[in-house]
Amino acid sequence: MLSFENDYCCGAHPSILERLAATNATQHPGYGSDDVCAAAAEKIRRACASPEADVRFLVGGTQTNQTVIDAITPPYAGVVAADTGHVNVHEAGAIEATRHKVLTLPHHNGKIDAAELRDYCTTFYADGNYEHMVFPGTVYISHPTEYGTLYTLNELEALRAVCDRFGMKLFLDGARLGYGLTADGTDVTLQDIGRLTDVFYIGGTKVGALFGEAVVFPKNDAPAHFLTLIKQHGALLAKGWLLGLQFDTLFENDRYMTIARHANEAAARIRTVLRERGYTLTMETPTNQIFITMDNETIARLQEHVRLGFMEKADDTHTVMRICTAWSTTDEQVDELIALL
Amino acid sequence: MLSFENDYCCGAHPSILERLAATNATQHPGYGSDDVCAAAAEKIRRACASPEADVRFLVGGTQTNQTVIDAITPPYAGVVAADTGHVNVHEAGAIEATRHKVLTLPHHNGKIDAAELRDYCTTFYADGNYEHMVFPGTVYISHPTEYGTLYTLNELEALRAVCDRFGMKLFLDGARLGYGLTADGTDVTLQDIGRLTDVFYIGGTKVGALFGEAVVFPKNDAPAHFLTLIKQHGALLAKGWLLGLQFDTLFENDRYMTIARHANEAAARIRTVLRERGYTLTMETPTNQIFITMDNETIARLQEHVRLGFMEKADDTHTVMRICTAWSTTDEQVDELIALL
Amino acid sequence: MLSFENDYCCGAHPSILERLAATNATQHPGYGSDDVCAAAAEKIRRACASPEADVRFLVGGTQTNQTVIDAITPPYAGVVAADTGHVNVHEAGAIEATRHKVLTLPHHNGKIDAAELRDYCTTFYADGNYEHMVFPGTVYISHPTEYGTLYTLNELEALRAVCDRFGMKLFLDGARLGYGLTADGTDVTLQDIGRLTDVFYIGGTKVGALFGEAVVFPKNDAPAHFLTLIKQHGALLAKGWLLGLQFDTLFENDRYMTIARHANEAAARIRTVLRERGYTLTMETPTNQIFITMDNETIARLQEHVRLGFMEKADDTHTVMRICTAWSTTDEQVDELIALL
Amino acid sequence: MLSFENDYCCGAHPSILERLAATNATQHPGYGSDDVCAAAAEKIRRACASPEADVRFLVGGTQTNQTVIDAITPPYAGVVAADTGHVNVHEAGAIEATRHKVLTLPHHNGKIDAAELRDYCTTFYADGNYEHMVFPGTVYISHPTEYGTLYTLNELEALRAVCDRFGMKLFLDGARLGYGLTADGTDVTLQDIGRLTDVFYIGGTKVGALFGEAVVFPKNDAPAHFLTLIKQHGALLAKGWLLGLQFDTLFENDRYMTIARHANEAAARIRTVLRERGYTLTMETPTNQIFITMDNETIARLQEHVRLGFMEKADDTHTVMRICTAWSTTDEQVDELIALL
Repeated sequence: MLSFENDYCCGAHPSILERLAATNATQHPGYGSDDVCAAAAEKIRRACASPEADVRFLVGGTQTNQTVIDAITPPYAGVVAADTGHVNVHEAGAIEATRHKVLTLPHHNGKIDAAELRDYCTTFYADGNYEHMVFPGTVYISHPTEYGTLYTLNELEALRAVCDRFGMKLFLDGARLGYGLTADGTDVTLQDIGRLTDVFYIGGTKVGALFGEAVVFPKNDAPAHFLTLIKQHGALLAKGWLLGLQFDTLFENDRYMTIARHANEAAARIRTVLRERGYTLTMETPTNQIFITMDNETIARLQEHVRLGFMEKADDTHTVMRICTAWSTTDEQVDELIALL
Repeated sequence: MLSFENDYCCGAHPSILERLAATNATQHPGYGSDDVCAAAAEKIRRACASPEADVRFLVGGTQTNQTVIDAITPPYAGVVAADTGHVNVHEAGAIEATRHKVLTLPHHNGKIDAAELRDYCTTFYADGNYEHMVFPGTVYISHPTEYGTLYTLNELEALRAVCDRFGMKLFLDGARLGYGLTADGTDVTLQDIGRLTDVFYIGGTKVGALFGEAVVFPKNDAPAHFLTLIKQHGALLAKGWLLGLQFDTLFENDRYMTIARHANEAAARIRTVLRERGYTLTMETPTNQIFITMDNETIARLQEHVRLGFMEKADDTHTVMRICTAWSTTDEQVDELIALL
Repeated sequence: MLSFENDYCCGAHPSILERLAATNATQHPGYGSDDVCAAAAEKIRRACASPEADVRFLVGGTQTNQTVIDAITPPYAGVVAADTGHVNVHEAGAIEATRHKVLTLPHHNGKIDAAELRDYCTTFYADGNYEHMVFPGTVYISHPTEYGTLYTLNELEALRAVCDRFGMKLFLDGARLGYGLTADGTDVTLQDIGRLTDVFYIGGTKVGALFGEAVVFPKNDAPAHFLTLIKQHGALLAKGWLLGLQFDTLFENDRYMTIARHANEAAARIRTVLRERGYTLTMETPTNQIFITMDNETIARLQEHVRLGFMEKADDTHTVMRICTAWSTTDEQVDELIALL
Repeated sequence: MLSFENDYCCGAHPSILERLAATNATQHPGYGSDDVCAAAAEKIRRACASPEADVRFLVGGTQTNQTVIDAITPPYAGVVAADTGHVNVHEAGAIEATRHKVLTLPHHNGKIDAAELRDYCTTFYADGNYEHMVFPGTVYISHPTEYGTLYTLNELEALRAVCDRFGMKLFLDGARLGYGLTADGTDVTLQDIGRLTDVFYIGGTKVGALFGEAVVFPKNDAPAHFLTLIKQHGALLAKGWLLGLQFDTLFENDRYMTIARHANEAAARIRTVLRERGYTLTMETPTNQIFITMDNETIARLQEHVRLGFMEKADDTHTVMRICTAWSTTDEQVDELIALL
């Protein structure tokens, strides 16, 4: 059955599998201390225009959020996130499992607002009892957000300024970063992210890799003994070069951007058809995720032929569904979906 | 300077100090395994009409919340609380420090609503991704709440029913329980609490003791090796009989209720005057805490003579302040305050 | 350069890569809820003669030890292990990071002794203060051990009996299980392990897979909401079918056993030569790891041509080194090593 | 029945109870922000000759060990302790509950040896895999030890030197510090401890207080937001002045030292009689704890009249028992015990 359920339903870009096969018998040292990881890190440093960056490779998104947030957030502090943030909702308490509270701000199409963040911090430090409360230590944003939306450069700069003012770290979850960087109309580049965040990750799992997320500390200020912390979180892959190999392949010849743009274009085609045919887009999104509020009968009819993502009940007869394209989505699959709509 | 800042600004009921002095040289076994604790527990069992109850004595409120919630909440679950709940706001992340997420519901004058709790749980289990989310495992309520308000018997029974339906434990934080049980108009008794909760505590720190909270498992189903868990949380007092002695003294001759009622009466006197003199009560509360929205000039004038509690900014020229009476408040102090108002 | 440094220096058995390539474009549901995982689990259930077993797939060894031990060990308890056990030494505190103490017994060539375990527990419960101590809740053994040694069936049965007597869970770390099951002279089968342990895992990372460990609860008594706990530990792979596919491939046509036996045979060839040429074997091991105590000059000479594992200083002029074969070791590599020795 | 079971079986020095009674109605601000705590801290700073010291007051020993070690030990590190150390054996896993491993060294009459500590660290950093291991971050010593023994000044200085060399913090558990400072023949003063440790605590629970331990950071380098960390550990007493009052009383007129010396003298009297009557002292100890290896019949006879502490089985017919004097031990009690021996 056709699936537009998510962007992690297929394997990897074929060039990755080819390289895996070609180097399968090569003997590598373990835990990421190999030449392939070094080469991949160097490519990423260049792409971010962060020549000093410390780049590490982890396996999955929740694991990365957990490991990074725990490592950079002081013990008396928590992480500020949109109430819809992945770390707040869909990580089974992975952040709290490392003893940090998630402090929530109301989301605006998945994003937090710099002015609201500033007010939150101002109110916090104005409270006579703030020493009895969890300090805002790290700010977590996802770009694209869980709703497929994007921060503008102005918005990122405003968040950075608030973080500077209140001594907070800015961490950007880029599980779908490729789709954000190649979206129509975005003014945010990878270099901007390298300049404005303290740490971010470039998602591989959802953008062309079998698995893998590249964590970047652009100012080369990873926490002391970060490798040990990765190990302690159960997040250190024995065959680390498998991660390096995938990112090295994705970051050669602009492949990461090319395949991400492809998914956005597929989404744009579908969005156009949806609009033409009178579907209700729940919100405007420029990336590979499309949210539609549909009546339940239409959903039932569609789901006989295609798997879609369930988001939430809209009302008694309507539901918000997600259509998600990916680097692996083919033109034929898009045609098939359009025929069904 | 006069203080109506909180209800833990004085020592203990004189009968406690007298008994401490009288038995100071007596040799007791450690860690609560003494006769005094046993006698206090028995008095509490009787007062709760829970003859099988397991009663333990801890030192402070945050410590008790942390130890109990951690002990009764499964590792895949969090604790549901009002967003204003002490565990969510003023415990410096003590709950998350034991790896449990605080899941918040909007408060209604400090209380959570059973229908909203039911909806929360229904929505949770209807979500296709609920296994990626923190389960609602324990429900935390405070009675009186942080705003001095009280649940009605109907409300408690409705919460109990929702807990039963969704397999959740009901934990009642009774840091100020005495003030709640003796409030004008309440229809909730200690026996009701014994019948309707899985575990609760009777606050001593704020109601007549130097320190101490009595944790009650009315169905005698404390977690396995609860003493070891108390120790592991650093919460096991070496000279445990000091806790037993205080509760044994408070629960003889109805002393706990008598001294709590006294504080409520003092608050009632003050409230009457406030109304007569046109002050704005922020909300109606039947216990020892009074919240007033005052203009900042009045506050400045008052604070030259009396310490009040700061709650939050109301607007640019007004602030919500708290007047808090206690078991130790004297008629003279009330007179003095009234003279100032 | 030639490497006999470890058994995770190469990719995967070619049949895995072929299948990855063949099914790369197939769309799967996420998180292990796919048919491939189901098929792999069924093959493993059959191989273990545990038709009711609950089988889960995780990515790496430390991650698996952390997630399983945390999930099965009560909060008042720790995990008993050999002082040389991986969980005690080489996991950067991953077990303690989940709040459980590692309680150590002296090792005997990497193994713990059932009689010593029984004495440990007897002494523990005889101590008047045992409620102030960490209870022995889970017993961790590795098979093969970190020293390549194996438990006999009698030894496993004796450990099982002690666990039963003191209410402990028995967890077997099978990171190198294939090498143990196919060792010359072992009388322990996979079915025995299914019968005698509460939970164990079948190592893929070191035995033919790119990565992956198959956790088996032979009595189908995985902890409640174990999927949620896996997620909370950051250990839930988005593309779960990648794990299923690897184990499904390894467990067809006895492949797992065949490739493991091959590594043991390579080790046996090397061991014979070492003995003939007068090398000092540090201890007798029947699996793919060989420990030799060598003078430092010989080591320096060898390391110009081959990477070996460093274990520990023996004395001022000698060092214990490890020669490790793997499923991927070729006859030519063995010949080359023998020529060097 | 007479008890020499421990040194926390009685209340507090009478001067403390008197002062509690005298100031019972005084209104204090909460959480240790009061004048009494400030005065007590100042007295302690003077006694330690550490004019810059940051002094905090906690309730109990395990709580203090847990809070301090967690606060000062980096996340990639553990705490080195004697295998007999309280944190390793008798705190129910309180240290691991905060995610830190206890790394053990063999004890020598309860003490660790600086040379062995140096070797441990040297071996650690020489291991090629040390990044996969728990770093030695903090060194925990107790003075007196759990066996009543004392470090010499030379030994403390040697430990300090090793800590400096390997970047470790030195933490001294002074639960019984008074008994150590006033022991016959000790050359270690409170000023030495202030000079040589990074943090230590002065035990009140076992030396004249109802409860309470004074944590001292002699270099005024407490971890950032240490008050918040105390709160997060459930260790912040609401009526903080109760702690200040006790230490202020103990540190006036040399009272802490005087009452501790009294206990040592009582122990010395008992020790003399034990030697005269041919009892076997398990080890030589200069403080208030006496360990005797006794045949089980004698023990049974004695225990009809006096409670002693059980330490461990010596052999099938003998047991190591503890006789513990305290600040509260009277001459009559000593006479009574001597008559029984």
